[in-house]
Amino acid sequence: MAQSKNTYCVIMAGGIGSRFWPLSKNRMPKQFLDVLGTGKSFIRSTFERFRPLVPVENFLVVTSESYKELVLSHLPELRPEQVLAEPVRRNTAPCIAYAARRIAAENPEADMVVTPADHLITGEAEFQRIVREGLGFVSGSDKLLTIGIKPSRPETGYGYIQVDASPRSETAGTEICKVKTFTEKPNVEMARVFVESGEFFWNSGIFVWSVAGILRALGTYLPEIDAAFAGGREKYGTTQEQAFVDAVYPACDNISIDYGVMEKSPEVYVRCGDFGWSDIGTWGSLYQHAVRDENGNAFGGGGQVLAYDTRGTVVNVSEGKVAVVEGLEDYLVVEKDNALLICRRSSEQNIRNYVEDVKYRFGEEFI
Amino acid sequence: MAQSKNTYCVIMAGGIGSRFWPLSKNRMPKQFLDVLGTGKSFIRSTFERFRPLVPVENFLVVTSESYKELVLSHLPELRPEQVLAEPVRRNTAPCIAYAARRIAAENPEADMVVTPADHLITGEAEFQRIVREGLGFVSGSDKLLTIGIKPSRPETGYGYIQVDASPRSETAGTEICKVKTFTEKPNVEMARVFVESGEFFWNSGIFVWSVAGILRALGTYLPEIDAAFAGGREKYGTTQEQAFVDAVYPACDNISIDYGVMEKSPEVYVRCGDFGWSDIGTWGSLYQHAVRDENGNAFGGGGQVLAYDTRGTVVNVSEGKVAVVEGLEDYLVVEKDNALLICRRSSEQNIRNYVEDVKYRFGEEFI
Repeated sequence: MAQSKNTYCVIMAGGIGSRFWPLSKNRMPKQFLDVLGTGKSFIRSTFERFRPLVPVENFLVVTSESYKELVLSHLPELRPEQVLAEPVRRNTAPCIAYAARRIAAENPEADMVVTPADHLITGEAEFQRIVREGLGFVSGSDKLLTIGIKPSRPETGYGYIQVDASPRSETAGTEICKVKTFTEKPNVEMARVFVESGEFFWNSGIFVWSVAGILRALGTYLPEIDAAFAGGREKYGTTQEQAFVDAVYPACDNISIDYGVMEKSPEVYVRCGDFGWSDIGTWGSLYQHAVRDENGNAFGGGGQVLAYDTRGTVVNVSEGKVAVVEGLEDYLVVEKDNALLICRRSSEQNIRNYVEDVKYRFGEEFI
Repeated sequence: MAQSKNTYCVIMAGGIGSRFWPLSKNRMPKQFLDVLGTGKSFIRSTFERFRPLVPVENFLVVTSESYKELVLSHLPELRPEQVLAEPVRRNTAPCIAYAARRIAAENPEADMVVTPADHLITGEAEFQRIVREGLGFVSGSDKLLTIGIKPSRPETGYGYIQVDASPRSETAGTEICKVKTFTEKPNVEMARVFVESGEFFWNSGIFVWSVAGILRALGTYLPEIDAAFAGGREKYGTTQEQAFVDAVYPACDNISIDYGVMEKSPEVYVRCGDFGWSDIGTWGSLYQHAVRDENGNAFGGGGQVLAYDTRGTVVNVSEGKVAVVEGLEDYLVVEKDNALLICRRSSEQNIRNYVEDVKYRFGEEFI
């Protein structure tokens, strides 16, 4: 199965994540960065990952109005109409409802993959194989498929998916399974039980379904949101689209597709894969995937670094800069534009608070 | 005694110190910085300290050709001819020989004070009183007076002056004394003995003498250097001065006035004072003089700082920047232009080596 004109890809790229501050900022969030030094931004890598499966004209990117130009500069193959601008942030359900209606107006037979813009996938070929398999599974049906990841640790930062298969079966998760439950982020004790049971998988936030199938589910479980976007049928693809979207978006509930649809529908399936996935949601996960020197230091950002008596430390300084660090163990040092962060790696969960404090004390221009 | 038309002040401002890298750089050495946040650069403070004693037209600044414009921007009261440009760096003896010849050509009756551009003196009135006393002492004589500082610790970074007075006498050093010996920087054991003896004082590098007196001493102890600058008698103050100086300077020995004259002349005296002196030659001495918060942190440089769980740390970030630091104890964090330094305060003596390494690895543009 090569590209199909019925296959669409929706890249969700509205994040403003502050966990990578000051590398990511409001003006330049993580999806536009190359934090791993691969030579490509996350959004560019995401686009290229799906490109063998999806015709270029069948990509849509949903993002904030303020990032529209940035998206087009990273994905110059796209026409401006392929970048959908949310006037306000409203979680994944409104975003997916809008994109599905927009696709349906163009091609009611379409199947669609929905993906975050800022995840890392190292096993591209395996990933593409699984997505192809998923597309075959959902096409022409109401089945809603999510991609699961075999958990390698009791992570408390992810949602989990419980499969309806005999526990510890060899094939559990390596084929498409019916989902038993979606769970919110667990506490660490619960996460340990999940991982040990063999029945639970991480929710990657990557979905595969037919446009007809997801619209039917939205109509059933989130009828108000569905009705809002259904009302724009005649306007999608015209010059009136943005004004219509700007009018209906603010009234939408702030709700995730997981909570609004996936946890409620009986048509939900999971295909688990092993393709080197990480959401790179923290400096810790970035550190795990970074090239490290013999002292366990990871240098990035394009600047030059000299480290003396330093171990386990991430130093990320921007191009054209030099950093000399001495006597640090397990620290983060990040310099970008008008901001510098130095903190222990073990304190990374506090970065959001630091960013709030900086905003409150010194203003928006630093965040 | 108010200002006298016979009183001249020579400010030596040729330093390119790398100990404050990256705050001080080749393009902007320490004398042009306000590292203590007083609102004035060191050279400006030095000028203002002597201004009540010296007519504005009697100041000379000796510096590198490349800093001439910088000097004039910090001291706009001076005419360009008052800034003497060394074509190469040759320690203090050639610098003083040049300045003395230049003054003698204008006013053979002159008395002169020589001072580094980058020292801190907090007790200005007392300092001015002592300099006035010194000028009265040397005027019309061959006596060479140096200003000494009562040592507060066994510092190994300074030269010491031993006085020829009854040890531990109450007045030792509080009046003008004959100098017994000048010593180079001692090791720490020797420094302890010096401090305990009560006979030794720090050499501040501030000198008072008559122009005739210092020229006589230079003629006796450094005849080649003296002869070189004596040869320009007809050119000082004319358009030919710079070409003459550029021609003779490179051949001069690289020698300090202490080693070349003060250690050899029998006419050497010291007046010790207690006027809050520091050469601010290290981050440690800067830290001692900086305003600190309740956790012993010193913030400077014009930028904004948020510190969490941080003690005894110097954070110096440039204006318009914000730094968030967490989990540091007794560190230096300095950000300026294209460079960032993070090191333990106890490692500050290595900064010169780091700068050499940066220069070798990444080039001159960072230093």
